[in-house]
Amino acid sequence: MSDRLARVTLMRVAEPGDAMMGRLVAAHGPQGAVARVREGRPEPELAGWFADSLNRESAGSRHERLTARLGRMFASWAARLETADPVRDLAEGERRGARLVVPGDSEWPTQLDDLGESRPHALWLHGEADLRFSCLRSVAVVGSRAATPYGTHVAAEFGAGLSERGWAVISGGAYGIDGAVHRGALAGETPTVVVLACGADVAYPSAHHSLFAAVRSQGVLVSECPMGATPTRPRFLIRNRLIAALSRGTVVIEAAVRSGALNTAGHAVSLNRHLAAVPGPVTSETSAGCHRLIRQGRATCVTTPEEMIELVGAMGGDLAPEPRGPVLPRDQLSPEIRRVLEAVPARTGTGPATVAVAAGVDLDTVLSCLGALAAAGYVERVPRGWRLRPGGSPDR
Amino acid sequence: MSDRLARVTLMRVAEPGDAMMGRLVAAHGPQGAVARVREGRPEPELAGWFADSLNRESAGSRHERLTARLGRMFASWAARLETADPVRDLAEGERRGARLVVPGDSEWPTQLDDLGESRPHALWLHGEADLRFSCLRSVAVVGSRAATPYGTHVAAEFGAGLSERGWAVISGGAYGIDGAVHRGALAGETPTVVVLACGADVAYPSAHHSLFAAVRSQGVLVSECPMGATPTRPRFLIRNRLIAALSRGTVVIEAAVRSGALNTAGHAVSLNRHLAAVPGPVTSETSAGCHRLIRQGRATCVTTPEEMIELVGAMGGDLAPEPRGPVLPRDQLSPEIRRVLEAVPARTGTGPATVAVAAGVDLDTVLSCLGALAAAGYVERVPRGWRLRPGGSPDR
Repeated sequence: MSDRLARVTLMRVAEPGDAMMGRLVAAHGPQGAVARVREGRPEPELAGWFADSLNRESAGSRHERLTARLGRMFASWAARLETADPVRDLAEGERRGARLVVPGDSEWPTQLDDLGESRPHALWLHGEADLRFSCLRSVAVVGSRAATPYGTHVAAEFGAGLSERGWAVISGGAYGIDGAVHRGALAGETPTVVVLACGADVAYPSAHHSLFAAVRSQGVLVSECPMGATPTRPRFLIRNRLIAALSRGTVVIEAAVRSGALNTAGHAVSLNRHLAAVPGPVTSETSAGCHRLIRQGRATCVTTPEEMIELVGAMGGDLAPEPRGPVLPRDQLSPEIRRVLEAVPARTGTGPATVAVAAGVDLDTVLSCLGALAAAGYVERVPRGWRLRPGGSPDR
Repeated sequence: MSDRLARVTLMRVAEPGDAMMGRLVAAHGPQGAVARVREGRPEPELAGWFADSLNRESAGSRHERLTARLGRMFASWAARLETADPVRDLAEGERRGARLVVPGDSEWPTQLDDLGESRPHALWLHGEADLRFSCLRSVAVVGSRAATPYGTHVAAEFGAGLSERGWAVISGGAYGIDGAVHRGALAGETPTVVVLACGADVAYPSAHHSLFAAVRSQGVLVSECPMGATPTRPRFLIRNRLIAALSRGTVVIEAAVRSGALNTAGHAVSLNRHLAAVPGPVTSETSAGCHRLIRQGRATCVTTPEEMIELVGAMGGDLAPEPRGPVLPRDQLSPEIRRVLEAVPARTGTGPATVAVAAGVDLDTVLSCLGALAAAGYVERVPRGWRLRPGGSPDR
């Protein structure tokens, strides 16, 4: 069984974000994990780790209970494994126009590694945009489903403002803030990313059918669930960690004090991503969650898309730093980076795949070279891809 | 000439907040300052201090210029001194029902000492409430004159909420936020304080005539200007430092990015008072100044009167700390404090003057003893004055 088929199998076998399965995969690889589920025998070290993660248990009854619990978990995985048909899943997904990406693929967003053992085994993507490329400069925008007209207005403004400035909007495709921000983003030219809590082929909510179609042609739908999976409450919550992890920072627009959006905010903080919140009238309960985040000092108060960009842009270096003008002379660039630079056009932007062909290097290398060249001020991102930064390479 | 008459004279001679006159008074006392203006000869050390405060001047031309400037300043003071008639001013003010308080009086709010050389020489007060007592637990609430319906609604809620909880509201009596917060405060039982930028006998704005009448009967009007003085733009700005200095903290409700309310906010910060701002819709320009203060980390985001009280109450100790339950056993109290405690009634509150008579000590001593007793958890403030704290003195 190949790595890809094993990962498609794991999507069927374990619930998204199941850290115990993540542990098994980290120890034995996807194929090894599937084999161990098939054997049905939990290893002792797994029980030990389980005990650590559940330190509420009293020492006396711990061993028996944990062994029983692990046994039930393996039994439930094994039952699902019986009915899993990864070859059919893969064919069915591709027949529907989706593509599977797994860790190591050039489109895999490596920032998901920050999720540790809850990292997805694989993702189904459906849409024209390249997920990794789109997320290089991206902001998660989340908020209440029961948004007010004020909230949906602000969300649409943020969506359009971020997209116009080349920042991809990541959200959950739900009613209210999510829908408004995606629609706003579609008004710009930057891809927008919908992270679903169901299969990539399931339009939920169904009234967003045409929104999802527009995102497929100008962005990308993302799911860590197998095709056909229905959205459940736990899946919504566990999905939120992907929204936080894919982006450089999360901004909450309207959230009551008990809102799912605050769950995403919590993920952003624990992943060391930036967190921001948009204030609103103090008379509005749907802004109370935002105000609490600001008061607690957990979120920065932002009032415009520019302020959000200032916040996430300031992080600099690690993903796709802001151009600051050339800092490295051209002759200090590595030969590979110089080859990529030669292949970047001067006026109209071009995609990384075209640059890869022209430079004669692989796509992954192109993406990392473009990042370095942008940091050094030689190239810049435009809606259609990359181009030389005007005045950015005076010694060319 | 008495200290009081000298101070009334100085109110006529120098503009409010004139730090050069403050310097003169600090060096020679009010009578000495008047005498020196009459002599019309600036001292050399004054020129030196003047030079320090204007260090933009080039060294070469400095001495001549400063001497000329000081001369003009003394001449203008002397001209005003010619027409000043402090005996008439004092009689006229008292005839109108106002009272003069000067540093050292029991009603003088000693927190004004934080203003250093711009401390007022004296204050005209007009109204039933005791200024010093009212300001022990007080919050300044300021904001835009051109307030939105949202802003005036929130201001009225803050005024009523603070007043109901025993916190005096201090503001400037202007249109918009000021007026709304005073009206809200009048709905509670706690005095509200209007700090005017004109004479205590001048109703400005005149449409607030009846508001000022209500404040006189349930609070107090305050002015550092002589009777009859008209409001000018510099007087509004210099007045704002009194609003900030009298209170434990300032909260800004609606302010555009260029609003006079931000001037008060600046005074609050430089006086080490708490500063807070109320958020509003990001689509509203009159909330932009509040959001900027929050974003800059200069102001805490507050959304309710309770949150404002939490902020200023947490400062503790120095003015009128929150009751925290008795911390000192009764037999460790000084004999004087114990005498005051005996005179405080158990149920209905009574004013400090009554306590002073019953305890046989002067009003000033009563005020400081009550502060100490409140800090130790024995007594508490209620709308009508002070009473024993229920359960606050188990060993009585």
